[in-house]
Amino acid sequence: MDRVAIIGASMTQFGQREEWIRGLLAEAGSACLDDAGVSADAVDHLYVSNMASGEFEGQTGVPNALAHDLSAVPAYTARIDQTSSSGGAGVYAAWQSVASGASEMTLLVGGEKMTHRSTAEATDVIASLTHPVEYKHGVTLPSFAGLTARRYLDKYDAPRESLGRVAVKNHKNGVDNPHAQFQKEVDLDTVLESPIVADPLRLYDFCPITDGSAALLFCPESVAREHVDEYAVVSGIGGATDTHVVHERADPTTMGGVVNSAEQAYEMAEIGPDDVDMAELHDMFTILEFLQSEDLGFFEKGEGWKAVEDGVTDRDGELPINTSGGLKSKGHPLGASGVAQVYEIYQQVTGDAGARQVDAETALACNVGGFGNCVTTTILEGRV
Amino acid sequence: MDRVAIIGASMTQFGQREEWIRGLLAEAGSACLDDAGVSADAVDHLYVSNMASGEFEGQTGVPNALAHDLSAVPAYTARIDQTSSSGGAGVYAAWQSVASGASEMTLLVGGEKMTHRSTAEATDVIASLTHPVEYKHGVTLPSFAGLTARRYLDKYDAPRESLGRVAVKNHKNGVDNPHAQFQKEVDLDTVLESPIVADPLRLYDFCPITDGSAALLFCPESVAREHVDEYAVVSGIGGATDTHVVHERADPTTMGGVVNSAEQAYEMAEIGPDDVDMAELHDMFTILEFLQSEDLGFFEKGEGWKAVEDGVTDRDGELPINTSGGLKSKGHPLGASGVAQVYEIYQQVTGDAGARQVDAETALACNVGGFGNCVTTTILEGRV
Repeated sequence: MDRVAIIGASMTQFGQREEWIRGLLAEAGSACLDDAGVSADAVDHLYVSNMASGEFEGQTGVPNALAHDLSAVPAYTARIDQTSSSGGAGVYAAWQSVASGASEMTLLVGGEKMTHRSTAEATDVIASLTHPVEYKHGVTLPSFAGLTARRYLDKYDAPRESLGRVAVKNHKNGVDNPHAQFQKEVDLDTVLESPIVADPLRLYDFCPITDGSAALLFCPESVAREHVDEYAVVSGIGGATDTHVVHERADPTTMGGVVNSAEQAYEMAEIGPDDVDMAELHDMFTILEFLQSEDLGFFEKGEGWKAVEDGVTDRDGELPINTSGGLKSKGHPLGASGVAQVYEIYQQVTGDAGARQVDAETALACNVGGFGNCVTTTILEGRV
Repeated sequence: MDRVAIIGASMTQFGQREEWIRGLLAEAGSACLDDAGVSADAVDHLYVSNMASGEFEGQTGVPNALAHDLSAVPAYTARIDQTSSSGGAGVYAAWQSVASGASEMTLLVGGEKMTHRSTAEATDVIASLTHPVEYKHGVTLPSFAGLTARRYLDKYDAPRESLGRVAVKNHKNGVDNPHAQFQKEVDLDTVLESPIVADPLRLYDFCPITDGSAALLFCPESVAREHVDEYAVVSGIGGATDTHVVHERADPTTMGGVVNSAEQAYEMAEIGPDDVDMAELHDMFTILEFLQSEDLGFFEKGEGWKAVEDGVTDRDGELPINTSGGLKSKGHPLGASGVAQVYEIYQQVTGDAGARQVDAETALACNVGGFGNCVTTTILEGRV
């Protein structure tokens, strides 16, 4: 069977941007077409990953606007929303579009414009995805993260410092990412002494509020080399939900959506976790990097924190995680994040990651919606 | 190649409902599974067509909530938004999901909860899909409809009464649809004497604001008969955009998205417009039924109004259009409408349309987003 290839990728500067959502999407979409040397005329399907342009800036119908802005009309368009994992859901939609035979060329652009709203307002929009009962009690996603971190540290006898080391590592990686919101290192003391947000988590355990966009171009592998010399194939992909009500989970330190989506992706790619050379994980909160690194099978349950302590997940470690800087330092524009994760692993497996380059033929991205409510996992293999 | 089958369908009562979006979606989703005799465990992909649950009721993440409410976890979920054609976009997403091999059983549920907001508020949310320049000048979708109707009547020398006859026909059909918002006939005088909304269009030329939900269950055709005796295949499907800026269109009486999406659907189904036995068109405004009936190739350009005048599109005519009552009398809960259109043609081609039954083996649904900004066309063939 003809597999699905990615032949182009782009991301905008992440951070506080002056452009509105339309401008951000057009910037990434246009750069992605340029990256592959493909004209907008060739695009037949155009997907937009975005959670809340209506809530954030009163603008709906952004896919149609983008088709206009890129001169891609009459390409079919739709918006894919899976809250904080809208980007991963967009990757899955774009893959389905090509794999189903519907499309010969699908452009996916993910983006979100958030920084014009206060942190409280943005957090509240995001929190509207939680179960109404949990929402009414004020349990926003940062609250869940605090509760889960406490449970994890206690259950696996992990030191508080280990969480801080995720922030230190990812900030260090972010220094070499010119698109990252924060291109500066932080030391462990700074993380551990930053203001408490949701005990035991502190300010530096959280990703920021971010504006930004990222894009990917998909086509059947059989025609990839007509456009580019080097590309990647989506060798595995999968998606799964976990309970919508977080307190219904048997073990809050296990993310069922990660386990199930990874199982599907590994099966499709005919590989296991040991075959993955690097990964981008959804470190919206530092604790999530531990959980995912375990639930993806990279480390035994309760050992993820040790891997970080031991430098295994450093850029020069055995399994580099979040070479991009992760959501932590790169930023987290909801609809863009999952697309930007795949941008990073695409750069890595095609050897275009510059100062961040590691030795990787097979790479994985895990995008988490809500507090693990829905997850997509994508595996790329480079063809260089 | 294994084609995609629809093996179950449902719709809720349309109208003013007390339930919120979650309740509406769960009602249709559950009924659809019952219709096919398939348990929620078997569902691996769950798509939700919805334009604006965040804007209308401050609730995001509805797909995860629905997975919970239907006990479909860990099925993958996402929300598909294509403004007023979110339902058709959901049909296309569900089709891609199965056709790509990702899914063995995809449940699509479309819905919208709107009536708790004023007509002005709802219209404004919908208008936020238009181009900012047009929006700033107050050109909402009803305004476009008025302008287009005036142009059509002038260009094709059609009488104002012909628009009214669309409303009369569709209201008559709606009488036999127990799920329709309005199950009552209106006479031509009532339509022609109703208050002006956007000259020459009057109140009865417009669909109402509606709450409701509809659902469809998709699987590969090769396994359809393991579940049901009678089903339909999606023999053709396609989607396309037209200019985002309506005033950029060369001819406002032609909907490019309809022309292009239909072309794709006919090609996939290997049929032409003459092979279609009945159709559900997006009569959000009466004028749109004329445009679509022509742009789909059923009638020559400028002759759609005559077909309505001559009774060709009546339920007992040569090509029945909107046997369900259409958006006009059935109602238009944005995310549900495109799904409910396919519900109707599914009932028709499987012989389950009751009092509304016409002789149809092949049927077509055309779902229009915005003012033709993006369109999906779906063709079903019955297997009975």
